[in-house]
Amino acid sequence: MNVHGKPYRSIWRDGDAHSVQIIDQTLLPDAFEVRTLSSMDQVIEAIRSMRVRGAPLIGITAAYGVAFAMEEGSNEALAAACTRLQATRPTAVNLAWALERMRTRLADVDPLDRDALAWREADAMAEEDIATNAAIGRHGAVLLKSLHQQFGRPINILTHCNAGWIATVDWGTALSAIYHAHTDGVPLHVWVEETRPRNQGALTAWELRENGVPHTYIVDNAGGHMMQQGKVDLVLVGADRVSAQGDVANKIGTYQKALAARDNDIPFYAALPASTIDWDWQDGLAGIEIEERSGDEVRLLRGRGHDGISREIQILDKMSPVANPGFDLTPARLVTGIVTERGTAMPDRLAHLFPGSSPKGK
Amino acid sequence: MNVHGKPYRSIWRDGDAHSVQIIDQTLLPDAFEVRTLSSMDQVIEAIRSMRVRGAPLIGITAAYGVAFAMEEGSNEALAAACTRLQATRPTAVNLAWALERMRTRLADVDPLDRDALAWREADAMAEEDIATNAAIGRHGAVLLKSLHQQFGRPINILTHCNAGWIATVDWGTALSAIYHAHTDGVPLHVWVEETRPRNQGALTAWELRENGVPHTYIVDNAGGHMMQQGKVDLVLVGADRVSAQGDVANKIGTYQKALAARDNDIPFYAALPASTIDWDWQDGLAGIEIEERSGDEVRLLRGRGHDGISREIQILDKMSPVANPGFDLTPARLVTGIVTERGTAMPDRLAHLFPGSSPKGK
Repeated sequence: MNVHGKPYRSIWRDGDAHSVQIIDQTLLPDAFEVRTLSSMDQVIEAIRSMRVRGAPLIGITAAYGVAFAMEEGSNEALAAACTRLQATRPTAVNLAWALERMRTRLADVDPLDRDALAWREADAMAEEDIATNAAIGRHGAVLLKSLHQQFGRPINILTHCNAGWIATVDWGTALSAIYHAHTDGVPLHVWVEETRPRNQGALTAWELRENGVPHTYIVDNAGGHMMQQGKVDLVLVGADRVSAQGDVANKIGTYQKALAARDNDIPFYAALPASTIDWDWQDGLAGIEIEERSGDEVRLLRGRGHDGISREIQILDKMSPVANPGFDLTPARLVTGIVTERGTAMPDRLAHLFPGSSPKGK
Repeated sequence: MNVHGKPYRSIWRDGDAHSVQIIDQTLLPDAFEVRTLSSMDQVIEAIRSMRVRGAPLIGITAAYGVAFAMEEGSNEALAAACTRLQATRPTAVNLAWALERMRTRLADVDPLDRDALAWREADAMAEEDIATNAAIGRHGAVLLKSLHQQFGRPINILTHCNAGWIATVDWGTALSAIYHAHTDGVPLHVWVEETRPRNQGALTAWELRENGVPHTYIVDNAGGHMMQQGKVDLVLVGADRVSAQGDVANKIGTYQKALAARDNDIPFYAALPASTIDWDWQDGLAGIEIEERSGDEVRLLRGRGHDGISREIQILDKMSPVANPGFDLTPARLVTGIVTERGTAMPDRLAHLFPGSSPKGK
């Protein structure tokens, strides 16, 4: 999608260089800066500090992390790289999916050939991510178009966090549907939730602004109120991990939106690629690790001072204890449908879109 | 309650001075500064900019505003003062209640006597507020004690916004219950929600810290997740306006907490004085004005820089439109009970606590 009118991806290689370029998302939307990653250590730092973020993009970036490690293409180096990369973020399953794909692809190949193959495979995964997200967008746009036809007026979509093009290689997941519908001429407006503590809503607002999509920014507390007032026609979010039963783990606060949607008879959809589905995840909250992040994410906030300089301020006393869970679980009973590259399904029909997918060892 | 170990009220007069002292709550918890208000204009500015805030404290401060205006005790001055003070904040009903009481008390009195009487009446209202909140606290503490006896372990209370002593003259409403239970030896822990956009959760954390009550600060997005995980035994909030039917208008975001509480079978209580009940309010959302506040409250945030200096930063581009509703409505069906100075009632029994109260003109 566009930045200052110029098309970008969130991660790319210049030719055959053994390095990748990323957009430093910790600086967005204040500053648009491209960084070069030249080692696996830099990949790990970029994922952990959320310079790259969003479940699909984390997966692709980790695949390039493996490619860096294959300069020394031994079995030990491959295993060690996967272990270290897996430890960066525990909740998003795309990371595990991408590492598993790289490991499987490289395992049976002569160690001397792994270096070149790893870069080609990571490139292929990036290309596939774009095609997958475009398909998600086309399926999601059908939903939005039918809502518009039903109401005969511009439709209002509420989204939480950033499931946009910068959370993937391009297009995004939830926002891909919005970009596709907008391009198709469906009149729409997006309520963008701030998404404390990391305020990824500011990223979503930036994306939508750069691509000409009407939107209004609200604090996370206001979403339910907008729904009560009849100002929301659809809730559409991304996901970090989805169970075979259709439970959705996503950015903290998503569950509260699903509750408000249900209370106001508003459909709640999650949009995600197959790589976000964890066919092995059972037992809801008991079966998933919810990442607990640093309390400083809550205490400290970065923005631009009146002098135009980017600054960090402390908004809570260091002496106050903080809990900072990164994700929550929206149970399938609150999910109207799941939009994937294969089409849209009710949560209990998700497995039918992916015949042959089933829990490991079953 | 205490600040640095010394007891304070949130508003007071030094002797018979025709001025009042307030704590500037826009600077808390970064800085504790007392300000003198010496005119009605200063009262209006203090309410509008939220130097004083919290439904009960707004009412008492407005009563002092009328007293300032009675230096010239004409009927016209009285009417004009009430009109201007009423316009400062539309949602909290305690403001209308306090002005109505001052108007009624002063109307039949010789204009020459109004000045002295107005100051005495405002002082009396401040004293009554403290007694009322102490009674709310005693009734609320009974609830907390019984929960503790039921579970046989420390209880976890989640609160939103600041319904503490600084939202009243002293004690608070929701926090009065917590202070009373804590003083009575009930082991408890409070989940303090940040409450974007004005982050009154930082005020609550400050109050609890200064008075030795265990607590943990979380973003508003995390409340539902804590409930899902069984980490919340009770949701307890204040209120800005409550209908005779038990609908609760409170700080934006409260509705989402009530939904999460219901979904997890957790009791949801609001604590408030009778002056917060609007016996004339019918028709839920259609019958109440929800204050729309400036988008800059969302875009700009104040805190302490690494250099220790208090600074404001911009966290969202000026070009992104913002909506900023100040309050939402929690319908009575989601409210377990309402704690008042007369005791605790289920919402549909609220009127039974206040026999004789009824809608105007009925």
